[in-house]
Amino acid sequence: MLSNKVCKLHSTHAKVLLRLYSSFNPAEQLTIRDINPSTVEAKYAVRGKIPIIADGLNELIKHDPSSHGLPFQKIVNANIGNPQQLDQQPLTWYRQVLSILQYPELLNQKEIFPKDVRERAKILLHHIGSVGAYSQSQGAPYIRQSIAEFITKRDKGFISDANNIYLTSGASTAVSYLLQILSVDSNSGFLIPIPQYPLYTATIALNNAKPIGYYLDESNNWSTNTKELRELIIDNQQKGIKIKSLVVINPGNPTGAILSTQDMIELIDLAAEYGIVLIADEVYQENIFKGDFISFKRVLSELIEKNHDLYHKVQLASLHSTSKGVSGECGQRGGYMELVGFKSEVKDIVFKLASINLCSVVSGQALMELMINPPKEGDESFELYKKETDSIHYDLQTRAEALYNAFNQMEDINCDKPMGAMYIFPKLNFDSKIYHKLFSRAKNSNLQIDDIYCIELLEHTGICCVPGNGFGQKRDTYHLRTTFLPPGKEWIDRWTKFHKEFVKKYKDVNM
Amino acid sequence: MLSNKVCKLHSTHAKVLLRLYSSFNPAEQLTIRDINPSTVEAKYAVRGKIPIIADGLNELIKHDPSSHGLPFQKIVNANIGNPQQLDQQPLTWYRQVLSILQYPELLNQKEIFPKDVRERAKILLHHIGSVGAYSQSQGAPYIRQSIAEFITKRDKGFISDANNIYLTSGASTAVSYLLQILSVDSNSGFLIPIPQYPLYTATIALNNAKPIGYYLDESNNWSTNTKELRELIIDNQQKGIKIKSLVVINPGNPTGAILSTQDMIELIDLAAEYGIVLIADEVYQENIFKGDFISFKRVLSELIEKNHDLYHKVQLASLHSTSKGVSGECGQRGGYMELVGFKSEVKDIVFKLASINLCSVVSGQALMELMINPPKEGDESFELYKKETDSIHYDLQTRAEALYNAFNQMEDINCDKPMGAMYIFPKLNFDSKIYHKLFSRAKNSNLQIDDIYCIELLEHTGICCVPGNGFGQKRDTYHLRTTFLPPGKEWIDRWTKFHKEFVKKYKDVNM
Repeated sequence: MLSNKVCKLHSTHAKVLLRLYSSFNPAEQLTIRDINPSTVEAKYAVRGKIPIIADGLNELIKHDPSSHGLPFQKIVNANIGNPQQLDQQPLTWYRQVLSILQYPELLNQKEIFPKDVRERAKILLHHIGSVGAYSQSQGAPYIRQSIAEFITKRDKGFISDANNIYLTSGASTAVSYLLQILSVDSNSGFLIPIPQYPLYTATIALNNAKPIGYYLDESNNWSTNTKELRELIIDNQQKGIKIKSLVVINPGNPTGAILSTQDMIELIDLAAEYGIVLIADEVYQENIFKGDFISFKRVLSELIEKNHDLYHKVQLASLHSTSKGVSGECGQRGGYMELVGFKSEVKDIVFKLASINLCSVVSGQALMELMINPPKEGDESFELYKKETDSIHYDLQTRAEALYNAFNQMEDINCDKPMGAMYIFPKLNFDSKIYHKLFSRAKNSNLQIDDIYCIELLEHTGICCVPGNGFGQKRDTYHLRTTFLPPGKEWIDRWTKFHKEFVKKYKDVNM
Repeated sequence: MLSNKVCKLHSTHAKVLLRLYSSFNPAEQLTIRDINPSTVEAKYAVRGKIPIIADGLNELIKHDPSSHGLPFQKIVNANIGNPQQLDQQPLTWYRQVLSILQYPELLNQKEIFPKDVRERAKILLHHIGSVGAYSQSQGAPYIRQSIAEFITKRDKGFISDANNIYLTSGASTAVSYLLQILSVDSNSGFLIPIPQYPLYTATIALNNAKPIGYYLDESNNWSTNTKELRELIIDNQQKGIKIKSLVVINPGNPTGAILSTQDMIELIDLAAEYGIVLIADEVYQENIFKGDFISFKRVLSELIEKNHDLYHKVQLASLHSTSKGVSGECGQRGGYMELVGFKSEVKDIVFKLASINLCSVVSGQALMELMINPPKEGDESFELYKKETDSIHYDLQTRAEALYNAFNQMEDINCDKPMGAMYIFPKLNFDSKIYHKLFSRAKNSNLQIDDIYCIELLEHTGICCVPGNGFGQKRDTYHLRTTFLPPGKEWIDRWTKFHKEFVKKYKDVNM
């Protein structure tokens, strides 16, 4: 019966195509006006116009390596925190275990893999099974338990519960789930730092909700200002906007700054008083140059311990990722979020969203486990692991300092010393004559002043960074965001040289 | 300067926690009424109530292996197409290359890896770099080119363009992008097959758009009915609903049926006439028991060749995945979509959504390439690859037939012979006396009749399948969806035995 049916179907394939066609008037294709306006309006600068020009130049260089006529030999991608696109090597520990998870026959290869690598792979295979099977939607239970233990240890004993952990695809999926459930209508407001990582404004736009920027205080190392935040909350409430969430990025992107405990407490107070969900984007927690990372979960737990009634209903979502730590495994799409203080009926909705996506990539879940539970002193892999991570830390910090020193020596640029993350967000501080000329150029080209700077930097040096307007900045201020990931320091020297010429050019009255 | 700042910060951590707390009245937590109603209303049956009961029973068995009091020793997960959760082994070809991509040091291991494995890994590493780096948002160019070549070959020479390929995380992300851009407001309508894969209704609900079910004709092997579809389009237009898209799942989930070319042409005609985007979910294209897969892209291309004016503006999105083929690599989250006929301004919006998600997991992208470009005759891996894929095909088809035979021998069950995919969707066909009793049980328990059947099946045999109401079915009809993935046939015998007892029990007048 089956084969008859199929044969009939296939022999008729050609025949039916010979039929007389129905006559109808074909309709036009959809245009941008037929498309969800929220998707049209959302903006995302990290992969916006400057990086697109850079991609174009890159193709030009590839196709015409010797005589493309550009004053540089390659593009320096300082626009995106993508360490392994540049020279950062993956950690051997991660990749050895992941290779065995992909091909468990390798478990027997004692000459290739250290004992602790084989043992960890065995444990993971035992608990999660094949990385080719869907895990539970929330993530493999064993991995969630391991993450909960990591958080408990990180936060000096304050307990984390595996049931509150959700494995995600990088931190982006976590942001997407949270903003989606919290966006009730166009009067749902989200407090986001300015400058911010543009994923937030983009996702808020997609959900047709309202972004409400709060300025970080550049004059005080990008700290938060509770007074201003409280005014924003009250003002917006009076306008009928319900503030659903306060987003904090710590360590900061694009600022590279770290919040003080005092600031964190004041933000938690606001969340407690107004019933606002605190979204703590803590993906750079491994990238801190000095001292220990202090998480919002820890500060909140300490506050609850001291005053349970005041704080136990604070709703905190804390985000982490395998992309941005010393690991820099962006393409592997590992991440988790921890939800505390949420009612279970609300967590059930997050669970449903995770179910609709089936599960996050299982090898990325395993990588998350390898990251938060690395080799310990005495383990066979420990020495190499330590050497590799120390070297990455050292490189990041050294380049951060070199870049910071270069900016501070440049005429007309102000810059805070970075404390962590992967970024610097220096401010252009030209004198009024230069600004005047830049303004008239900007007016004619529909660009902003920081766009002009970034385009000229790219054209003259091949260095691709992102204009501050993609992250948000105070009116009449102009910034740049650059990573400190590109290898070497030669590009920093080229930038210094370019800057001098840029200033000279726009100072020239006859221009 | 940096170290001073950080030290100060850390020494004050304990101190600031000792401060006098602000006094304020803490707010209540969010309840389900404070949450986006679209996210509350979305339903997703594949991981719904029956699988949740099964998970609970599974835990019970684990914690109390000998004396849990259940009449079975383990849960048979026939509810979800997750082959490697059951006994299906991953293909060696995939996993060998992926292990080298994770740990490129393995490239030298000539004793472990065949030559073609090492060569492919080398090519992929050359073109995509580290799997730990973000790729281009749309996917690595080399992989998109390889996919375009696969499609061109599959579709008998009709050209596919790598610029139209978007790598996605399984097919779910593709569905999410498409439904999101097409949902302009609550009057945006989506034609979805009934029965359907519930990802569609869930995603439509999340976008607050309107699902419009069209019935597949069970009496004609689940074929489509163009006349009914046309009436639905016209009726809905008159109600002010704008039909944005027509979703077709071919081979069918949950039906296991394959559309005839005639049906495909008629569906394309509708898309052409009404300017409706055709979403062709073709993720089961590798799972066909007889003959070649005929894609919508191929049929559309043939139509364009014959009548360019009528068909060249048809907008088709074709979805594929690494999860559901013979590969069954669900947890690796590989997939792609091909967009044809779309204006570039609309494709730009899809590109932006992909950018906001940064990129799909790069190892999953590589897996997609390995799947559509497998070893060829003469390659060192070919023999093993062929043996493994043949064996999986054979197992799937054998179990499909065993299950089909079992259902057809069961009293009161009707079932079409499956032609592909991984599923059967049999219909419960009880006599009116049994229905009468089931109805009164259903009324008292807030369940539907197919829910009752599935729950009792689970309780008595440990077999977990999904009630038809999770996929949609005609009023007063009741179905079950079961995969044919669980190994062996013993569970099928248990099902037959259960069914007899179920019918007997509800036939018993004194019950």
